[in-house]
Amino acid sequence: MKPTRPSLASKTKNAAQAAFTIGIDYGTNSVRAIIARCSDGAEFGSAVFNYPSGAQGILLDKRDHNLARQNPADHLLGLEKSVRGALAIAKKQPGFNVSRIVGIGVDTTGSSPIPVDKNNVPLALHKRYAKNLAAHCWLWKDHTAWREAARITGLAAKHRPQYIAKCGNTYSSEWFWSKIWHCLNTSPKIFAAAHSWVELADWIPSVLAGVKDSSAVVRGVCCAGHKALYADDWGGLPDKEFLKLLDPKLAALRDRLYEKAHDATTPAGALCPEWAKRLGGLTAGIPIAIGEMDVHYGAIGSGVREGTLVKVIGTSACDCGVVSASKNVPDIPGICGIVRGAILPGYYGIEAGQSAVGDIFKWWVEVVCQGEGKTHRELAAEVVKQKPGQSGLLALDWNNGNRNILVDQRLTGLLLGQTLHTTRAEIYRALIEATAFGARAIIERFREYGVPIKRVVCAGGIAEKDPMLMQIFADVTGCTMHVTASSQACALGAAVGAAVLAGAHRDFPAAQRAMTAVKPRHYKPIAANRKTYDKLYALYRQLHDAFGGINKSADLTNVMKDLLTIKESQN
Amino acid sequence: MKPTRPSLASKTKNAAQAAFTIGIDYGTNSVRAIIARCSDGAEFGSAVFNYPSGAQGILLDKRDHNLARQNPADHLLGLEKSVRGALAIAKKQPGFNVSRIVGIGVDTTGSSPIPVDKNNVPLALHKRYAKNLAAHCWLWKDHTAWREAARITGLAAKHRPQYIAKCGNTYSSEWFWSKIWHCLNTSPKIFAAAHSWVELADWIPSVLAGVKDSSAVVRGVCCAGHKALYADDWGGLPDKEFLKLLDPKLAALRDRLYEKAHDATTPAGALCPEWAKRLGGLTAGIPIAIGEMDVHYGAIGSGVREGTLVKVIGTSACDCGVVSASKNVPDIPGICGIVRGAILPGYYGIEAGQSAVGDIFKWWVEVVCQGEGKTHRELAAEVVKQKPGQSGLLALDWNNGNRNILVDQRLTGLLLGQTLHTTRAEIYRALIEATAFGARAIIERFREYGVPIKRVVCAGGIAEKDPMLMQIFADVTGCTMHVTASSQACALGAAVGAAVLAGAHRDFPAAQRAMTAVKPRHYKPIAANRKTYDKLYALYRQLHDAFGGINKSADLTNVMKDLLTIKESQN
Repeated sequence: MKPTRPSLASKTKNAAQAAFTIGIDYGTNSVRAIIARCSDGAEFGSAVFNYPSGAQGILLDKRDHNLARQNPADHLLGLEKSVRGALAIAKKQPGFNVSRIVGIGVDTTGSSPIPVDKNNVPLALHKRYAKNLAAHCWLWKDHTAWREAARITGLAAKHRPQYIAKCGNTYSSEWFWSKIWHCLNTSPKIFAAAHSWVELADWIPSVLAGVKDSSAVVRGVCCAGHKALYADDWGGLPDKEFLKLLDPKLAALRDRLYEKAHDATTPAGALCPEWAKRLGGLTAGIPIAIGEMDVHYGAIGSGVREGTLVKVIGTSACDCGVVSASKNVPDIPGICGIVRGAILPGYYGIEAGQSAVGDIFKWWVEVVCQGEGKTHRELAAEVVKQKPGQSGLLALDWNNGNRNILVDQRLTGLLLGQTLHTTRAEIYRALIEATAFGARAIIERFREYGVPIKRVVCAGGIAEKDPMLMQIFADVTGCTMHVTASSQACALGAAVGAAVLAGAHRDFPAAQRAMTAVKPRHYKPIAANRKTYDKLYALYRQLHDAFGGINKSADLTNVMKDLLTIKESQN
Repeated sequence: MKPTRPSLASKTKNAAQAAFTIGIDYGTNSVRAIIARCSDGAEFGSAVFNYPSGAQGILLDKRDHNLARQNPADHLLGLEKSVRGALAIAKKQPGFNVSRIVGIGVDTTGSSPIPVDKNNVPLALHKRYAKNLAAHCWLWKDHTAWREAARITGLAAKHRPQYIAKCGNTYSSEWFWSKIWHCLNTSPKIFAAAHSWVELADWIPSVLAGVKDSSAVVRGVCCAGHKALYADDWGGLPDKEFLKLLDPKLAALRDRLYEKAHDATTPAGALCPEWAKRLGGLTAGIPIAIGEMDVHYGAIGSGVREGTLVKVIGTSACDCGVVSASKNVPDIPGICGIVRGAILPGYYGIEAGQSAVGDIFKWWVEVVCQGEGKTHRELAAEVVKQKPGQSGLLALDWNNGNRNILVDQRLTGLLLGQTLHTTRAEIYRALIEATAFGARAIIERFREYGVPIKRVVCAGGIAEKDPMLMQIFADVTGCTMHVTASSQACALGAAVGAAVLAGAHRDFPAAQRAMTAVKPRHYKPIAANRKTYDKLYALYRQLHDAFGGINKSADLTNVMKDLLTIKESQN
């Protein structure tokens, strides 16, 4: 069924005013749906559904802390519950009517591939495989495939360097081929039973579209991009000859995957009557936006454009930028992904990230200090009183490895400069500063390779709730930090994608201008702090480069002494 | 008054059985006296007196955390109280009588110099100076003179390298000349009022001997040694020409200090009638042993001899070894002090140490974890269950700088290998291991330069109370760790010194054989743990040498990865 455009009189502002789209955001622990007005992005309804399976929605294996899976049944139940919940609220608002919903968009975590049968049904939904963890959705943060990732990196470096040149020359254990290969190596029966593998971001739209044939699933280039090593330049997915080097069975699988992946100008399909009904009486046939990963639609929902970097800061951090596809974007060493159309159509999407941000503070406060929310607030109150460099401490933000710019999971945390008087609040600040230094390393790398960054817009829980951290990020990076207006930027971005497809706006830039905004409160760098942080960042880079393998003949003699000198000057 | 030997019938075992000596140990917060039987070291009485002034006996300055002074009035009051208290207990034991006390010995902290007037009275005891902190005893851990120390190091390196060759080529802010020069620079009136300066270890014996003339104070080579840059080789104290480079007033002071310092074969004097009475009716005229620093008499009380290293492990750690003076002991880079006669007569005393041991654990538990004694016990219980290398952590033990083998106060702590799951107990263990690695670095340096270490005897609170730490020290160093039998090894060592002078034993080795012992429980290295710790120590040395300035082109790329590999093999 091809999507039909609902009866919008014209693509005028009035038309947009009368129209709404649904954005659905599949997170790690829950799924949230919002109803957004196309004219201004106003949220008319929102509902969240917590996945019932496993530990906070994640299927774990006590014997292997790398394992993280998700139950596709949770995804289906959550789809219905969240959309119906959001509609129930929207219905109470004046000016809203279910019939005015003109499109629907979905974002999810990724790379989160699902083994499916010929009929596009996840194996986990078959009774015989329900208890087999390999039959479920392989959640983004599953790292069981680290050995396979290393082998793919090695083979690509030797035989197809171009495959990994645009993802920092390192293929990740979090990605499509690592996971599928690991399934083949450790759960061969599930591999054999799987007709194809579909990213969660593509699978949910295909369900909404009523696709019952796995070869008919419309695939988004966002997930296909570097995560499945897809590029039009080399004819789509990796060639069979290369895949044979991994395993002939992977080469055979290629035929049952896909030839073409699409950007957000292509719809994933049209809402099928069955799901139109299940979601609470939506209009069948409205367009379904192509599925994108959460941070990519989050970038759109935060107003990403050339010159604007969007940072989603939460447990970890994702940085998204775009550069016009008319320009020549070089390979950027140590940057995860450069994929045409991955975020905005007509632009290269450039993605980077930090493996842990909020998770590091949570570790410090909850695991080490054995505190709770109150402790976070108490420490934050002390941190506000501290000056940059006053503690003499310096940390590396690698407690969960380094995604960029080193692309190395086998790195760990470091704290330096402790005396017998160092307090937990000083260490808390040093950890915050470390994540800010990590953010600066990414920004500098972007700029070195010609990606302009004039403006930073932040999204995510930490950006909204932690002014102290935002100020430190501003002072360390030297960039003014804005905060996106919507607290559901990912879902809003999916709604923007649907609004464009539905014709409520001419194109993405127009839709973003209308539907996204930043909060009035922003964070400007303070000159004196910048100066101190420039010195501290230089010391951070000394440690970063020495332990990260960039500098193999490092002179670190000055580090502790320089920190003491800075400390003395700030006390 | 020359010391007279009391009426011991002969130097037989029977004579020693009938005789007792007093050992008095001046610590940082309190002074303790013990009454020891000369035949076997049995403790017949013991009493402790807490200094009443300042914070736990230490005079502080809120504006300068480097400052630490002590009130000489506390020392005098404590002398009387502690000895009388110990005697009161001893009097209740059968076979004891005050008339059987044949000698008295004193150890103190050091370098802790006191400005005195011509009559050997500390300036602080003059009403007009009582409130001036510079007029008091400059406690060992006073670091106000760090600038002066650096300048002395620089001047000596240029003009008299031999002066600092035997103290690791670095002169410390804790030592005699740094402190006196700092007094001259910051409290010139006190400097001008001081006729001379006397180490606490020399001053207490001089008080007991009734010395009323500061030029008549008998000086011990133990404190004079590297701390006052004294050596017979270059004619005693530093020459005037050199001191003039510091300040002509220091050159002028030299005439009012001393020409000769003595080892423990020379008595500090004989007990004067006034103090014989004040201490509770002792026999006037009994010999007073030369004053030594606490760890040196502690080493004697723990049975130090060639081949035996004595480690006093408490808030910090001191390592003492001896090598026969008939041998040629080379300069040992990075080792604090090599002084003939400093510990045992006829031997070079070799001293090294770690700036913080127990203080680091205390910092972790009390300052960071905000716990107390119970928390120490809980963490220790968890640490016992952990295997070496299991946490993936590695730390440097430099929270209070590094005394040996780097001799650098401007170094700080480091912790590496943290993940998002690292616990406070794992960090606690890593800090313990770090201090053990620091201890190993010293032992290896000793051995490299021909100081034999076949046996390690530990003293101090931690050695007595922490079997888990002792086992880790054994596993890391590869040495069997013994624990000295007396929990008052310093005071016992002073009592041993007095017993030799009094003729109760032929010489120090004989007295040590009779009066000192180790506990039956000792700690043997466990082969499997040694193997893991050999790997971890190699990584420790990589960090140690890189941050400590030894290796100025360090490749640290392997450190985090090797720790993860070791962690994986231990889990």
